[in-house]
Amino acid sequence: MIRIGVIGYGYWGPNLVRNFHETPGMQVACVSDLRPERLAVVQGRYPAVKLTVNHRELLEDPGIDAVAIATPVSTHFDLATAALRAGKQVFVEKPLAATGKQVERLIEAAGKVDRVLMVDHTFVYTGAVRKIRELVDSGSLGDIYYYDSTRVNLGLFQHDIDVIWDLAVHDLSIMDYVIPHRAVAVSATGFSHVTGGRENIAFLTLFFDDPLIAHIHVNWLAPVKIRRTLIGASKQMVVYDDLEQSEKIKIYDKGINIDRRRDPAEKIYEVLVGYRTGDMLSPRLDMKEALSVEAAHFVGCVKEHKQPISDGGAGLRVVQILEAASKSMRQRGIPIELPHQGRS
Amino acid sequence: MIRIGVIGYGYWGPNLVRNFHETPGMQVACVSDLRPERLAVVQGRYPAVKLTVNHRELLEDPGIDAVAIATPVSTHFDLATAALRAGKQVFVEKPLAATGKQVERLIEAAGKVDRVLMVDHTFVYTGAVRKIRELVDSGSLGDIYYYDSTRVNLGLFQHDIDVIWDLAVHDLSIMDYVIPHRAVAVSATGFSHVTGGRENIAFLTLFFDDPLIAHIHVNWLAPVKIRRTLIGASKQMVVYDDLEQSEKIKIYDKGINIDRRRDPAEKIYEVLVGYRTGDMLSPRLDMKEALSVEAAHFVGCVKEHKQPISDGGAGLRVVQILEAASKSMRQRGIPIELPHQGRS
Amino acid sequence: MIRIGVIGYGYWGPNLVRNFHETPGMQVACVSDLRPERLAVVQGRYPAVKLTVNHRELLEDPGIDAVAIATPVSTHFDLATAALRAGKQVFVEKPLAATGKQVERLIEAAGKVDRVLMVDHTFVYTGAVRKIRELVDSGSLGDIYYYDSTRVNLGLFQHDIDVIWDLAVHDLSIMDYVIPHRAVAVSATGFSHVTGGRENIAFLTLFFDDPLIAHIHVNWLAPVKIRRTLIGASKQMVVYDDLEQSEKIKIYDKGINIDRRRDPAEKIYEVLVGYRTGDMLSPRLDMKEALSVEAAHFVGCVKEHKQPISDGGAGLRVVQILEAASKSMRQRGIPIELPHQGRS
Amino acid sequence: MIRIGVIGYGYWGPNLVRNFHETPGMQVACVSDLRPERLAVVQGRYPAVKLTVNHRELLEDPGIDAVAIATPVSTHFDLATAALRAGKQVFVEKPLAATGKQVERLIEAAGKVDRVLMVDHTFVYTGAVRKIRELVDSGSLGDIYYYDSTRVNLGLFQHDIDVIWDLAVHDLSIMDYVIPHRAVAVSATGFSHVTGGRENIAFLTLFFDDPLIAHIHVNWLAPVKIRRTLIGASKQMVVYDDLEQSEKIKIYDKGINIDRRRDPAEKIYEVLVGYRTGDMLSPRLDMKEALSVEAAHFVGCVKEHKQPISDGGAGLRVVQILEAASKSMRQRGIPIELPHQGRS
Repeated sequence: MIRIGVIGYGYWGPNLVRNFHETPGMQVACVSDLRPERLAVVQGRYPAVKLTVNHRELLEDPGIDAVAIATPVSTHFDLATAALRAGKQVFVEKPLAATGKQVERLIEAAGKVDRVLMVDHTFVYTGAVRKIRELVDSGSLGDIYYYDSTRVNLGLFQHDIDVIWDLAVHDLSIMDYVIPHRAVAVSATGFSHVTGGRENIAFLTLFFDDPLIAHIHVNWLAPVKIRRTLIGASKQMVVYDDLEQSEKIKIYDKGINIDRRRDPAEKIYEVLVGYRTGDMLSPRLDMKEALSVEAAHFVGCVKEHKQPISDGGAGLRVVQILEAASKSMRQRGIPIELPHQGRS
Repeated sequence: MIRIGVIGYGYWGPNLVRNFHETPGMQVACVSDLRPERLAVVQGRYPAVKLTVNHRELLEDPGIDAVAIATPVSTHFDLATAALRAGKQVFVEKPLAATGKQVERLIEAAGKVDRVLMVDHTFVYTGAVRKIRELVDSGSLGDIYYYDSTRVNLGLFQHDIDVIWDLAVHDLSIMDYVIPHRAVAVSATGFSHVTGGRENIAFLTLFFDDPLIAHIHVNWLAPVKIRRTLIGASKQMVVYDDLEQSEKIKIYDKGINIDRRRDPAEKIYEVLVGYRTGDMLSPRLDMKEALSVEAAHFVGCVKEHKQPISDGGAGLRVVQILEAASKSMRQRGIPIELPHQGRS
Repeated sequence: MIRIGVIGYGYWGPNLVRNFHETPGMQVACVSDLRPERLAVVQGRYPAVKLTVNHRELLEDPGIDAVAIATPVSTHFDLATAALRAGKQVFVEKPLAATGKQVERLIEAAGKVDRVLMVDHTFVYTGAVRKIRELVDSGSLGDIYYYDSTRVNLGLFQHDIDVIWDLAVHDLSIMDYVIPHRAVAVSATGFSHVTGGRENIAFLTLFFDDPLIAHIHVNWLAPVKIRRTLIGASKQMVVYDDLEQSEKIKIYDKGINIDRRRDPAEKIYEVLVGYRTGDMLSPRLDMKEALSVEAAHFVGCVKEHKQPISDGGAGLRVVQILEAASKSMRQRGIPIELPHQGRS
Repeated sequence: MIRIGVIGYGYWGPNLVRNFHETPGMQVACVSDLRPERLAVVQGRYPAVKLTVNHRELLEDPGIDAVAIATPVSTHFDLATAALRAGKQVFVEKPLAATGKQVERLIEAAGKVDRVLMVDHTFVYTGAVRKIRELVDSGSLGDIYYYDSTRVNLGLFQHDIDVIWDLAVHDLSIMDYVIPHRAVAVSATGFSHVTGGRENIAFLTLFFDDPLIAHIHVNWLAPVKIRRTLIGASKQMVVYDDLEQSEKIKIYDKGINIDRRRDPAEKIYEVLVGYRTGDMLSPRLDMKEALSVEAAHFVGCVKEHKQPISDGGAGLRVVQILEAASKSMRQRGIPIELPHQGRS
């Protein structure tokens, strides 16, 4: 039985506590939050859980094996460092920390004490994203041509992070999981419509050494909600619409055929590109709640001493892109080179 | 009665001929095309129209008052110049020419002979786009925050122009018409998946001196067709979905309220941004075919000696952005300044 | 403070308990269920609530003011009668009872002890349905021409009631609330694809003395989920799609104009019917959970000694139609007259 | 070369003429219409076609091999009879005639002169409907449980026929083609909102000797357009949405499993019905225009002396159901037995 303490009971904390509470092999031992009124809510729902306004109590409690951190991004590094130093297994809300440097130090710290460091890249644990990974791995899509995601709605204007850190982080973590290539540079543009505020609309392009391009489109100020990703590839193409009730993934047997040998003459491209349209398949997906899959995975990693799917390395690659994107955005899209990113 | 000659009977030419044929005050006198088999098609449909494989015959015919050019972009400049020199009223397929310099010389040439020079920015003549212009002009949307368009499908890979010149030209012409601000710079990214071919996927961001950003997203290799534009603004927001049968325009009484005075304290943004949601209205639109409205407008401009809505100036602004975007795209999104563009 | 006991913690009971639990002025005092494992679930969630496998304990507890019944339909009458006799305020899952006669006796019993008898017609308390009622009452729709509802999906095959009693009951309760006319006869058809089972697909037509027709279409064996109601009327028409996230109600300024006087000639109908199309409006709706609104309404009715919106009379009219429909269905659609139904 | 004459150039005639005109092996020789202004339209489009206001001229012309009749239903019988007597091959707009008796006499007349009698059941020639037939025939759907179609929009109020004869005829002809069972009775309900007019909204239920039920839902006065058919079956289920651009057919690997042996106990149905959900497949369809496929089929039948798919027998079965449905509708849904219908 892993006894976990949760720091932060704001927007996401309640989801963590509910799922940890229902995960076999796990027990929510303590919740800390600076706001007594939030702790009162926990009390009403889980009378057996210990409560505190001081997270240090939680960290110092030897009966607690693991700590989940669901606080503002700027506090992730200090809290996760302290938890690792106290010998806890650590689960951190996305993004893992506020800078790539911080993430590197967390990875190092976790290695030193031989503890699990897992970042909450929730979407990676959905049936839809796991199905996409399966399709890519099986080779049935062929070569990936592009990854193009739109994630917009009328959302909460965060005041400590821009829309890239709030929303694009989801797309980057999904892409990191499903695409077997690493980006080498990023160009981003965006705008803040609240003077003095953070960018609330942004567009990122990721460049690769491979014949692949990625684009992410995020917006807190859209009149409608869109959660749609197109994946173009040489054999089949995928549309992933997270707002669809059951047909979240559609696989199109559609594309172009490029044949260079057929005509060596001058007007080369007219002959080269042939069009193909076929059936569309929407596969049945595992509809289990992602966070419950993820909590069980955390338990498994702790018990079996394994690297999680969303480990420090995944967290690092995502944060490095976020950092570079924000930098590019401040310079109207000038491309920023990314550190070399190997696959974890 | 304006007697018009049409050069080029490929993809778009038949639509021009059909609409000109049915426009009161206009008569299709001649069609030229290099391919005799295309002329045979004209003959079957319009037995009374004169046919020729030599467009010079058409230009030299004194009985012809106006010329429509529906040939590849690279030929627009020479053909339009020759037509103006022959004293014809000129209607040119979009984009008006292959470079901004060419467009400037066409505008000058048209001015010298006092003839109409009109570019076929078809969407500008649809009921949907005219409704958006009306909404912007009336002030009911408030300040425009962003213009964000997606225009993707499995489309013909052009071999003489990239996807920006083929598809984004539509969005730029619409934006030029409905948005009362002029872009000052553009950052674009894109990729060609056919080695040696033109970019088949591209993303453009336009910057303005005003608190406004625009983004255009085009793709010839998408598994689904999307034609959607979001317009964010301070009072109301618009979704324009051209694939909707009848509800192409939706106006959302939705957005944020920014109030600086309410709380001068430290945590300023949490207080500043309030959210507003209200009704959605989908106004009835004039469903007349755009090209028929446009043909009648051309007749009116010729008769009354007026500037068309889609005049040389509109054509110039659009081509200048296309040129800058292609240039930025070859440099992974480095922003390119645009020439100063006044409203025509 | 109203102390309520809930009998039955199966599919719907948990929703009742959760909402009663959070309703100001109400306290869930006791839950009874025949299955100890269901009571264990209650215990985990609401440690303070008293539990029993014997509902009589609950009925005899003088500390309990009100009783909610969420058990199979066949038990409603006995349980509600016992509760009223015990002097409790009574809230019963839909349909109120298994026959019209039973409902009449419940109404009488409630009258005798002067207690509230409320049936859980949940949809009547949604923002969407209340908006439709508002539109009808205001006269903005004009005369109602038809009410046409489709409620299908792959649903649980009930073994004690047919699909009419399970699904059409929702439509009948909505219609009873929004339409100011009472049906006089019903014709229903249906089929059971499980030999010996209850009908799993059914179609009801309701006839009125007014120029109005209603149709309800229910199915437990549909490959897709549809929850759509069309309301035709003389001035405006409404589409209510309960699966839409936010645009559940759309009001179309669309219809026909019938003018008899314009042309007294022979070809009369061509002239009579003119077509009208205008804007579509999707009004903002109150998105509060229906059951929470309903629970508060129950509290208010008990406190202020008032008839609920979904009172015994509403329950009676709905059950009378259900009975007649099942009867018609067994005779391949032969129309069955309904008892005269006054508006409550 | 088959030389065809077309009687009636109203709403549908132009589609017939255009498709016949473009069908290899066919030539439109003559068009007749009572209205000279309609003939003028033909002249503008097809200068070579002979025109007449007197259909007798067309029937008496020995150079004409075949006649297509696209006039009001009430005239079908007389015109088709005359055409057959004149030895013409005959193609008639749906429904084939105004009564079953008339259709029987037409079949007899065609047999006597050994000519083709084909009714224009257009949908039967679409790629979508042919795909459904293929699925049914292959056995991949299993046993058909129900056929449930909705065909509504704001449509033209016909003054000579009710909405069943105008719209349900399409569903009946599709069903006749794809379902290998024959209905034995029909119950229909409907209403006319124009005093003295024909029913503008109607609902039909068809009964079979097999464990199958069909329902058709038609309406001229709907605020939105719906063209959707659900086909329930034991192995797979189909949704056919004719308004979808490319995904008109969706095949759901979904349903129930009925197993009687698993539990012989009392509470039998809870155990009997198991639920199955799997993938959804949307097959690529032949997108050729139905009328062009149909025209080619007519040519083939004439040349090879074969029965068309939509022959007199299909026309008869459809008209017999239409007649019975209108009769049932006038009696509020009383079921009407159908004549015994063998498969042609």
